[in-house]
Amino acid sequence: MEDQHIKRKLAAILAADVAGYSRLMSHDEEGTLRRLKEHIGDLAEPRIAAHQGRIVKRTGDGLLVDFASAVEAVRCALAIQSGMADRNRTAPESGRIEFRIGINLGDVIIEGEDIYGDGVNVAARLESIAEPGAIFVSRAVRDSVRDKLEVVLEDLGERPVKNIARPVRVFRIGRAEGAGPGSMPVASRGGGQWPICATH
Amino acid sequence: MEDQHIKRKLAAILAADVAGYSRLMSHDEEGTLRRLKEHIGDLAEPRIAAHQGRIVKRTGDGLLVDFASAVEAVRCALAIQSGMADRNRTAPESGRIEFRIGINLGDVIIEGEDIYGDGVNVAARLESIAEPGAIFVSRAVRDSVRDKLEVVLEDLGERPVKNIARPVRVFRIGRAEGAGPGSMPVASRGGGQWPICATH
Repeated sequence: MEDQHIKRKLAAILAADVAGYSRLMSHDEEGTLRRLKEHIGDLAEPRIAAHQGRIVKRTGDGLLVDFASAVEAVRCALAIQSGMADRNRTAPESGRIEFRIGINLGDVIIEGEDIYGDGVNVAARLESIAEPGAIFVSRAVRDSVRDKLEVVLEDLGERPVKNIARPVRVFRIGRAEGAGPGSMPVASRGGGQWPICATH
Repeated sequence: MEDQHIKRKLAAILAADVAGYSRLMSHDEEGTLRRLKEHIGDLAEPRIAAHQGRIVKRTGDGLLVDFASAVEAVRCALAIQSGMADRNRTAPESGRIEFRIGINLGDVIIEGEDIYGDGVNVAARLESIAEPGAIFVSRAVRDSVRDKLEVVLEDLGERPVKNIARPVRVFRIGRAEGAGPGSMPVASRGGGQWPICATH
């Protein structure tokens, strides 16, 4: 009677890849591969682990990561982009690598270690339209984090997304001026966190 | 540097309670309690288990349930409301019990077995404004299920919610005419489910 064989879960999906990867590779294949491996091993993976993310898939120049929390996914993305900016400051211009990151929130289908569905596709599309060094998120992610993190959100309007029927409302997210490296949470505007059924 | 001691997760939160509970109790205390116990034990709990929900809290006349998937939370709510309608058809008018149900999706804080945060409060508020027998959901839930279930969604507009800074966009959700009892999923409008990074 119901599709009990399909297992679903809510997930914040982070897609990241290297901007201009083919150009970098054509310019310095071995150097680019070595640097990318260092950035992923020394920066991205420890940050992903610290924010309880799970790497679902690795591509040549990118990652697809599954987070249980949108807040943790955004914190992780901010930490990676800020870490990459630091690393690039001391690198020769020709050796600079920049990531594009997209984050979406969706009710995805789980099959073993894999996740599927529109929610995953939208994350990949957000990443593909993000500028180098930027983080693009969907409205669902924006709504989940805006009162919980000191971030600046810029509404980029609706964008058509290939293979997705509805346009996706896109936001660029960045650390607020003066916010610490850990993007400290601010007090909820509702007056703090409320216990469940406080007034029931 | 970061609030690693706070654990978060995305959850679909279902709040349910009995409409007019005080009135029912004042009219027939023992009968109401007995019937409510039957409805919860024979109908609600098995449906919640079938949809992988976890009962977080029980109140005198209600439940707070945590689901990993918004699709499963809505399926569960539809099954409970449809089961209650069936049961009420054969019950004497004075013995009819109706549930109000609210479902929200949020990035909640977990502490042991409990969940906290605005996401939980909004679910409770959605339930408190729902009509007897109805299911009210937030926009995030609407967005997560509308292409995945055969449901009718009615936009009730924005409603102010006590202790929550922003008004909440409220939708009434029901089974589509002709849809089976299990609210079978329809094909995704994007042309089915896509594998991760299909075009990467």
